[in-house]
Amino acid sequence: MQRPAASGADSAEVKSYLRLQQRRVDAKLESVMPPADTYPEVVHEAMRYSLFAGGKRVRPALALATAEALDGDEEASLQLACALELIHTYSLIHDDLPAMDDDDYRRGLPTSHKKFGEGIAILAGNGLMTLAFQLLAEMPGAAVPDSVRLQVITHLCRAIGAATGLIGGQVMDLVSQGKSYTEEEVRYIHSCKTGALIEASVSTAALLCLAPGSARQRLSAYARKVGLCFQIVDDLLDVEGSQSELGKGSQKDALLEKATYPALLGVRRSHEIADRLMRQATRELSFLGSRARMLVGIAAFISSRRY
Amino acid sequence: MQRPAASGADSAEVKSYLRLQQRRVDAKLESVMPPADTYPEVVHEAMRYSLFAGGKRVRPALALATAEALDGDEEASLQLACALELIHTYSLIHDDLPAMDDDDYRRGLPTSHKKFGEGIAILAGNGLMTLAFQLLAEMPGAAVPDSVRLQVITHLCRAIGAATGLIGGQVMDLVSQGKSYTEEEVRYIHSCKTGALIEASVSTAALLCLAPGSARQRLSAYARKVGLCFQIVDDLLDVEGSQSELGKGSQKDALLEKATYPALLGVRRSHEIADRLMRQATRELSFLGSRARMLVGIAAFISSRRY
Repeated sequence: MQRPAASGADSAEVKSYLRLQQRRVDAKLESVMPPADTYPEVVHEAMRYSLFAGGKRVRPALALATAEALDGDEEASLQLACALELIHTYSLIHDDLPAMDDDDYRRGLPTSHKKFGEGIAILAGNGLMTLAFQLLAEMPGAAVPDSVRLQVITHLCRAIGAATGLIGGQVMDLVSQGKSYTEEEVRYIHSCKTGALIEASVSTAALLCLAPGSARQRLSAYARKVGLCFQIVDDLLDVEGSQSELGKGSQKDALLEKATYPALLGVRRSHEIADRLMRQATRELSFLGSRARMLVGIAAFISSRRY
Repeated sequence: MQRPAASGADSAEVKSYLRLQQRRVDAKLESVMPPADTYPEVVHEAMRYSLFAGGKRVRPALALATAEALDGDEEASLQLACALELIHTYSLIHDDLPAMDDDDYRRGLPTSHKKFGEGIAILAGNGLMTLAFQLLAEMPGAAVPDSVRLQVITHLCRAIGAATGLIGGQVMDLVSQGKSYTEEEVRYIHSCKTGALIEASVSTAALLCLAPGSARQRLSAYARKVGLCFQIVDDLLDVEGSQSELGKGSQKDALLEKATYPALLGVRRSHEIADRLMRQATRELSFLGSRARMLVGIAAFISSRRY
């Protein structure tokens, strides 16, 4: 008999879990980041400015919840979580640049290049990416074989690379601006630009926990659906939200004629797809039984978030 | 009795060696780079455009000559050599951007952002850096323990990072433009922006070869002196050279009032320092005996190069 989809933690529990993990991740980031007065100060200040700008730490939370479901090494998964957030922050800084999305605000604050200038913003992004790889190479956890640390790095490189990852998504996002685009292009942009790092957050955590291939496949499928759902909801919030709620310019995507699901399929159909993806993601985790509670709860939270 | 400084390969031999290694590295780079028609094409085209623009492959040659002197794994050191060149190329693309040095030409060709636009240039640089880490994580060589692969990544991350590496050097270079600067700042910029990656080219190759700590220290000292010498000669060529020989705008540094040795100490004294560094570098390798021939020859070649 197929096991039913696991029931998830309720919304209040998820919110409290996310706050808890956010505090853990922020404390760890504080300890691994060079102090703001590290020479040359301006770039370290810029790295910290974007890193500690109130991010929700969704990717770290997914990695940590995966590691908890699989009973993985706590120290190693926390360090992985930090590396994921450094990579995410690097991608945001570069994405906001005038040569890319040209955004002046992010999370209610001036973007990195508005505050520090373009040169320092580019270099701060590069510094964060470099530090992420250093954290991965120096990952603690006696139970984690070195071969697995290397696999984690390989997986992440693919997830953020030019061919199948984040950079590829940013490229297509950039060249699609102001053009008409196919559903295939929209799907590529979303699956690379947002999906790949979310998938990697879950998959690399599962790797660290030495999960068998079959479990990693199911978790990867879960994460790909959650990632796509996350991006669709993000697009919907951009259409439906207001600047004050989001802390950034809303309806920006429409002005740029960017590749989004609401633009392509309409708002109602996008909502339907997001809901379906959340249910499908949940079903992938049936093999985990009650250990899937928080991952299921996070998927539901992501599909219904309002900010 | 202290061994005398090893005698080096002569200039013709070094040139022929560099051409040979350049061909080996180019062939390997061709095989590890995604083809230019990899989707999304424009970023892969841009990555290849800068990577195959006729670079001298100095860093790969230093890594390969080190590995040969220490009888290291050929496959592993060739893959390391490629990763070093990817990182070097990423740093050049970003350094040429309007927000940084704002260079229109590099090696006689339009710079990446002039040809592909700033957004794609930034992303091509990011793609090269990411691919470099992937090559390091997937490094072949059965004789190389995984723990050593991780140490190589850590060492490189420090060498190209914001605090003590390449990014830090670029930051200080950027903020020093148009200001007066101290000898200490010039030294920091040079040792980080050029020196750290040259040091890492030799040190990571020595790590791969499982060289003992004492040998790695001597090789690191050799490489730091060669790196500084390389940069001083680069600055001197900028003062003395012409655009046609260099393939880029000459006297650019003086116009920008940038931190250089000739600006600080004068041309003659800079020549003297470069020569002294070359001799000191050579002496560090006495422990290698005749196996140091090519490394000694490369140091002499770098100190006397005219392009």
